[in-house]
Amino acid sequence: MKDIQNQPDFRKIDIQKVGVKNISYPLTVLDQKNGTQKTVATVNMYVNLPHHFKGTHMSRFVEILNRFRGEINLKNFHAILSEMKERLQAEEAHMEVDFPYFLARERGGARISAEYRCAMHGSLGGKNDLLLKVRVPIYPPSPGQTDGLMPRSLGHWGLASIGVRLRHFIWIEDLIRDIEAVTSPALRWPDLGAGEGVPEVEPLGVERLAKAIGRRLRENEAITWFAITVTNYSEGCATFATLTWPETTATAQE
Amino acid sequence: MKDIQNQPDFRKIDIQKVGVKNISYPLTVLDQKNGTQKTVATVNMYVNLPHHFKGTHMSRFVEILNRFRGEINLKNFHAILSEMKERLQAEEAHMEVDFPYFLARERGGARISAEYRCAMHGSLGGKNDLLLKVRVPIYPPSPGQTDGLMPRSLGHWGLASIGVRLRHFIWIEDLIRDIEAVTSPALRWPDLGAGEGVPEVEPLGVERLAKAIGRRLRENEAITWFAITVTNYSEGCATFATLTWPETTATAQE
Amino acid sequence: MKDIQNQPDFRKIDIQKVGVKNISYPLTVLDQKNGTQKTVATVNMYVNLPHHFKGTHMSRFVEILNRFRGEINLKNFHAILSEMKERLQAEEAHMEVDFPYFLARERGGARISAEYRCAMHGSLGGKNDLLLKVRVPIYPPSPGQTDGLMPRSLGHWGLASIGVRLRHFIWIEDLIRDIEAVTSPALRWPDLGAGEGVPEVEPLGVERLAKAIGRRLRENEAITWFAITVTNYSEGCATFATLTWPETTATAQE
Amino acid sequence: MKDIQNQPDFRKIDIQKVGVKNISYPLTVLDQKNGTQKTVATVNMYVNLPHHFKGTHMSRFVEILNRFRGEINLKNFHAILSEMKERLQAEEAHMEVDFPYFLARERGGARISAEYRCAMHGSLGGKNDLLLKVRVPIYPPSPGQTDGLMPRSLGHWGLASIGVRLRHFIWIEDLIRDIEAVTSPALRWPDLGAGEGVPEVEPLGVERLAKAIGRRLRENEAITWFAITVTNYSEGCATFATLTWPETTATAQE
Repeated sequence: MKDIQNQPDFRKIDIQKVGVKNISYPLTVLDQKNGTQKTVATVNMYVNLPHHFKGTHMSRFVEILNRFRGEINLKNFHAILSEMKERLQAEEAHMEVDFPYFLARERGGARISAEYRCAMHGSLGGKNDLLLKVRVPIYPPSPGQTDGLMPRSLGHWGLASIGVRLRHFIWIEDLIRDIEAVTSPALRWPDLGAGEGVPEVEPLGVERLAKAIGRRLRENEAITWFAITVTNYSEGCATFATLTWPETTATAQE
Repeated sequence: MKDIQNQPDFRKIDIQKVGVKNISYPLTVLDQKNGTQKTVATVNMYVNLPHHFKGTHMSRFVEILNRFRGEINLKNFHAILSEMKERLQAEEAHMEVDFPYFLARERGGARISAEYRCAMHGSLGGKNDLLLKVRVPIYPPSPGQTDGLMPRSLGHWGLASIGVRLRHFIWIEDLIRDIEAVTSPALRWPDLGAGEGVPEVEPLGVERLAKAIGRRLRENEAITWFAITVTNYSEGCATFATLTWPETTATAQE
Repeated sequence: MKDIQNQPDFRKIDIQKVGVKNISYPLTVLDQKNGTQKTVATVNMYVNLPHHFKGTHMSRFVEILNRFRGEINLKNFHAILSEMKERLQAEEAHMEVDFPYFLARERGGARISAEYRCAMHGSLGGKNDLLLKVRVPIYPPSPGQTDGLMPRSLGHWGLASIGVRLRHFIWIEDLIRDIEAVTSPALRWPDLGAGEGVPEVEPLGVERLAKAIGRRLRENEAITWFAITVTNYSEGCATFATLTWPETTATAQE
Repeated sequence: MKDIQNQPDFRKIDIQKVGVKNISYPLTVLDQKNGTQKTVATVNMYVNLPHHFKGTHMSRFVEILNRFRGEINLKNFHAILSEMKERLQAEEAHMEVDFPYFLARERGGARISAEYRCAMHGSLGGKNDLLLKVRVPIYPPSPGQTDGLMPRSLGHWGLASIGVRLRHFIWIEDLIRDIEAVTSPALRWPDLGAGEGVPEVEPLGVERLAKAIGRRLRENEAITWFAITVTNYSEGCATFATLTWPETTATAQE
């Protein structure tokens, strides 16, 4: 038995976060081409309460979500957090919204609605923060084939998971475009001439791709911080490489 | 309102199956090389009750599982079903056991414990049946590379899901060997010489691979029936091809 | 070695189904109150090809999906299958569409968008069929509490999974209403008076609930066949009971 | 275009972590009653490389795992991390091992192998750390029933997810025992006499349970730090409460 029992005021047992999670919710997000896009999100909402505060009404989280149902996006995320903080009398408010986002893409010869898993994670109070996240599938070239100019895409090689902190609003489409400029075959081998067959390039590598995406994102003046994880579902196990930039402020706020 | 209400005896509302599902259970299965192998299974157990029977005690399912805990395999599967049928006074007994099975494999230059998802699904009573299932990952050759003789494996191209009905016991290892003889690169391009670069083969196709596996399994005299689904996780959506053999008895029993 | 090798024409190795699966797709479905509802579906599409037919272009599946993107519902499901059959020159066409469907509900004191997982599975050709499926969460009463008239809902006791074949169109809302009339606490204990405390009822049982739902659905004249599975996530493993009606035509078509 | 491009040395783009993840691996862990227990783990292994280092061979991670295959546990976790650090010439080594752990339990009248999801997450290098994690299902009492002394368990009310840092080795069993002393009905209502019916207790609450577990774990002198999240799968969405202790060193190392 520790003597800590005799010092109850020194190290308190108190709830630090309380909230709701895994709420499935129909959502409207901003769409560069169509104005808005309807999707279905998974939402977590939670607050840090002051120590003297006794509990909270979980139903208030959903009520706040209902009030903003029309849209949750980078522009009004702060307003939702503010309302959470005020209505729940909380010291800090947190919200995490994950959703599939669809963009028209050519793949395998068909025009499809390609799915990109996106997320917005924000906090208000102790530390103010807003992260935009997006996962971009990576398709490698196939062996022994050149559909016209470029090697034909062969399969789902892996995934680039990107998180960014922003100086000002950007479109999800523009962030995806930056990433795919690096991960799509056409841009990985820009100098390949027609009929030359499979390029004698080095194999795709998680480290090389992560760095290449990093160099690209660093040129986007709207981005103040990013984290990149490239994962390759190969060889019987997933290999990955991670980097953040600027490295020294990986956990700090801008 | 239908007049069916006046004919209660003609079309009865009665429970047809009752049981337990998604039980996580530590299991010992047979291993050709090591005698046995410990794994963790997900188990479903259920029975068809006679109409006059009033309910069952769910705890009996787990008790039966406990009695055989030492091992569940193709050899004693029938005995477990018999005990279910008897102890639960059921007309039919069903059990589905799904588990990861590990085999030593070379992949990506390392010797790994490769995971194969396996299952045994059996019934006793109305129709007697026992299916052995295994899922074998398919790794395609990479572009522009020849590690010595063969193109280097590039990634998780897809999956071959196989179900077989048997004339007599076979080892899971032998079934996997039959499938990998078709799906592994070394056997798909047996005549490729060293240094010749990427082979000018046709691209892998789900239909072609499913047929090739089918031709191979048809030569295994222990197998009386099989179903094959080859899935390719490419091009932004999964494509697949399915075949059963003999075709005309796809749902019949041997 | 089996002599089957000498009888290649007798038992052929041929693809029976080919298609695409797990396509994530933004969808518009019918909504009784609001006309339509936007959601995100997972779609499988596949066809049975004639034996002499050599392969198919997977991209055509997605093209057909694109043409009908505006809506997929019980009313136009047959038209989509017809187009699949025609454009792919197939003997049979199959489509499975699974999606979350949202309805306004009171739960835990808050007005929420409750999620019901729904599905439409249809076939055209060899056998014509259309199943509507819905999964309804079951909430039991809590111990020692009477919020006014009724025991307070305590948790996610289990799930009722229903599949129906129909004589004519019905709203998803009406099917859910039929099921919740049985599974919701207020209707399970209709005679409980205020202040009487916890009712001395028998415990909820998967068998009893499945039968009660069955009796209710049998009265709905639009429904020609149904399958009901009630699952209880209790006691450390999931217990379940299943019934179909009419029992003798469980696998037949209307 | 940012002028950051002209300061390449100031803010570098360099890989910070590289490794393998989601490796399915057969494992032997320590078992208080039986000496050892075989299970199947999911393993992540990664390292932080010095900036001048060019890549790593992913196969070495699996080789290290193979060398220790016999067992991974709290006692040899540090030795595995040391070998990772040395063989990969890394600045830091990290390993995360998640696995189902089975204990004999009474539930729903049957003696079952109850599954507890456990994990060990450790780091060596920059910051040395070792967390033991365990998830304990919470079963509430049922309405209107007293099986002898205690209300019968009704269902899977929720989950207590616990992470601890340790002064010295403890058995997983002892940690689970501490948690279930709080979450199991028999100990929540120790003074309830037979035949008294449902106790007029306050309803279970995530905040109250989290604090009660916290008070219990604080008395365990082996534990120097803990984090507790109690989640309740009720009311159509999951509600949760989180606390860490000591609060002021939530992210610090002991």
